[in-house]
Amino acid sequence: MKNTQNFISKQADRFLNELIILLKIPSVSADPSYKSQVTDCAKHLANSFKEIGLDKIEICQTAGYPIVYGEKIIDPSLPTVLVYGHYDVQPADPIDLWTSPPFEPVIKKTVIHPAGAIFARGACDDKGQMFMHLKAVEAMLSSGELPCNVKFMIEGEEEVGSGNLAIFVKENKEKLKADIILVSDTGMLANDVPSVTTGLRGLSYVEVEVTGPNRDLHSGLYGGCVANPINVLAEMIASLHDENGKVNIPGFYDRVVELTDTERQEMAKAPFSHEAYCKALDLKETMGEANYSTMERGSIRPTLDVNGIWGGYIGEGAKTVIASKAFAKISMRLVPDQNPEEITALFTHHFNKIAPNSVRVLVKPHHGGEAAVTPIDSIGYKAASMAYEKSFGKKPIPVRSGGSIPIVALFERELGLKTILMGFGLDSDAIHSPNEHFGLFNFYKGIETIPYFYKYFKELNSNP
Amino acid sequence: MKNTQNFISKQADRFLNELIILLKIPSVSADPSYKSQVTDCAKHLANSFKEIGLDKIEICQTAGYPIVYGEKIIDPSLPTVLVYGHYDVQPADPIDLWTSPPFEPVIKKTVIHPAGAIFARGACDDKGQMFMHLKAVEAMLSSGELPCNVKFMIEGEEEVGSGNLAIFVKENKEKLKADIILVSDTGMLANDVPSVTTGLRGLSYVEVEVTGPNRDLHSGLYGGCVANPINVLAEMIASLHDENGKVNIPGFYDRVVELTDTERQEMAKAPFSHEAYCKALDLKETMGEANYSTMERGSIRPTLDVNGIWGGYIGEGAKTVIASKAFAKISMRLVPDQNPEEITALFTHHFNKIAPNSVRVLVKPHHGGEAAVTPIDSIGYKAASMAYEKSFGKKPIPVRSGGSIPIVALFERELGLKTILMGFGLDSDAIHSPNEHFGLFNFYKGIETIPYFYKYFKELNSNP
Repeated sequence: MKNTQNFISKQADRFLNELIILLKIPSVSADPSYKSQVTDCAKHLANSFKEIGLDKIEICQTAGYPIVYGEKIIDPSLPTVLVYGHYDVQPADPIDLWTSPPFEPVIKKTVIHPAGAIFARGACDDKGQMFMHLKAVEAMLSSGELPCNVKFMIEGEEEVGSGNLAIFVKENKEKLKADIILVSDTGMLANDVPSVTTGLRGLSYVEVEVTGPNRDLHSGLYGGCVANPINVLAEMIASLHDENGKVNIPGFYDRVVELTDTERQEMAKAPFSHEAYCKALDLKETMGEANYSTMERGSIRPTLDVNGIWGGYIGEGAKTVIASKAFAKISMRLVPDQNPEEITALFTHHFNKIAPNSVRVLVKPHHGGEAAVTPIDSIGYKAASMAYEKSFGKKPIPVRSGGSIPIVALFERELGLKTILMGFGLDSDAIHSPNEHFGLFNFYKGIETIPYFYKYFKELNSNP
Repeated sequence: MKNTQNFISKQADRFLNELIILLKIPSVSADPSYKSQVTDCAKHLANSFKEIGLDKIEICQTAGYPIVYGEKIIDPSLPTVLVYGHYDVQPADPIDLWTSPPFEPVIKKTVIHPAGAIFARGACDDKGQMFMHLKAVEAMLSSGELPCNVKFMIEGEEEVGSGNLAIFVKENKEKLKADIILVSDTGMLANDVPSVTTGLRGLSYVEVEVTGPNRDLHSGLYGGCVANPINVLAEMIASLHDENGKVNIPGFYDRVVELTDTERQEMAKAPFSHEAYCKALDLKETMGEANYSTMERGSIRPTLDVNGIWGGYIGEGAKTVIASKAFAKISMRLVPDQNPEEITALFTHHFNKIAPNSVRVLVKPHHGGEAAVTPIDSIGYKAASMAYEKSFGKKPIPVRSGGSIPIVALFERELGLKTILMGFGLDSDAIHSPNEHFGLFNFYKGIETIPYFYKYFKELNSNP
């Protein structure tokens, strides 16, 4: 991989400039007002595929945003790597908390990224990480060192549940035939503590609406006489956790796979400073399910969080109103073997059941996804581990993560393929938050590490 | 009052057209973006004072919006009526629930108002009701039948707590010298069941902010590990009521004056249909403090309601975020002898106390006001009762109301004057809500009734 690495060094500035152009496209999939920009982003990506020399490039239309496909089959007898990523990004709001505009990327130095980081929505999640794969493959192709066949499948609806990707995968099993799926859409523990994600939580996401009176009322005339839907919603939300921080929905934990004591002891070996964790978030204390550590709460345990709440008067000043309706967006992170559809159904049933007679309740399911676990004794994991060891000089730590990439479970079910999650972001990169960024060290380390994965994956396949 | 009533009949159309012009001015005091329109409204009103022939007209500047003053002293030995009202209005949002634009008044017939009602923000609260007094005084002046001296004091900050009116009243005791204060800013039971408000609830209004982590976080990576400020706020709000619907703040009920059984029996005689009440609001059930009737819950009992709540992602679609902050606007309706400052202090202390260590809490007080009660054996009440009897053909029912006009207690304390609340609005007029309206019957009945009040007030003063 000598020529490949030389090529990467020489082209470093160009790679970064190309990423900046990609980040300038506000491809916010959750907000319909960005529709044309999301489809523009797909076209831009297809063009990037062309520039690096991929074949059979296609902007695959779906009922939603398109999936961009491209491949390079150098020899059908060689193993094939299927790269998955997404070109859509989270909404940028609250926009006023960004220190620079979310779609005007800038490079700034930070304490954690002394060599600089690129600040923009999507910098880390997932444009920056997805783009590393393009540039790594370009380097291997240009240097004549690509060891495996490669297929790219980059979607535009990851942030809204990948509903159409699921259909696409089911309908294109032959096209997507491969030996392993490679994804960079997660993080690692620190720039000097490389890690590979071996577990992901699943997701169930719902929106709830509580209706009291049929119109907004004057709180002086009606206060105390009718159910206030905001107060009722608050009470219903409060009742969703018990005094031990456990989710209080009947059946919620029925399928949860509990880790053995040995497994928990292994997990506890990962470096974690409670003090540094609290300090970074400006917290006096953490909070969560009793009898589990913070790392366990965020990875091997299912959770329930309100992601948004609104109702009544939220402008400046005071308005003495009893709102007719109150709303919340609520998500549950799931672990093996919880089933997202079943959890959504349990939630819906329970939420309706606990509603007092004085209000009406509506639960609207958003997207969901199953949890997934990657075995560390597989060829894919071993190739990733060797690649990190080569570029970082140390073996990566296998980590169970709290986030969800629901399509990982889907890939396994539909394509029979395991997914290797080579994430190069850091927890502090503020993905889904204002001032999202991605370290330049991480971006280049990713491009450097990926070719080694191809090399070792080919070698281990020939000689496991 | 024959000539006066003739004048009113002949000028009815003009009176309505003048009200429409007044309602077109969006004098929203709570929203700084309407600043120039609120001051325009004060100027417009001063001009209306001039047109009807008041003297000593003055736009009295304050630290906030001005108070418009005008008077007609026909004989210093006669009793003086001080009319209070407000020209500011509530914000119009949620704007999309209005069936016609809030500041483009239209006349529409409704089931309750078969003769038509004028739909606009402020139609009932309080421009329409305040304007009745101007037109009634115009009619008496034009007909040479004004029986008392009259002073007008119309403010522009009632919907934001009347903070500067309190200062104005304290500093202008001589100017405001009078025998009674007359206000139309309340309602009556029905168009064929006239009533006079004899009690008002007080108000304490606060805004709370709950801060968890110092930035928005990804709910996958952090969900379950840190306090989610929305969940915490929901739990804190839920804990503010006990299982009997009582407000759960230590000391909250300490000063509440309990009514005697006889008083409660008197109250229970007012006509009230639980079925009709629920039907009008599309509710299966009412909800409130145990062991009190709906009418009691809305008038003689203190309450706590969330008037607005917000936090996290509230746009379209789904965003898996743990918000850094969550907010709520919370108001408490108070009864004699609760003190608003004391209640705000009790709330603030309690809210800080129940906050878990994992969050920080900020309580910001908005405006407040004391409860007030008008004795029905006073000359002022008797004059009002006789005036209603004259124009409606039946005696009005004295009613304790749930709303708050905090300045009523202030007037009593500072000016030593009782306030007569001759309200002509209906509960169904949707004040503070979309589609606020005011019946034409009510508007004209008010203009017809007010002159009789002056007549009887003068007579009862000479010969009690």
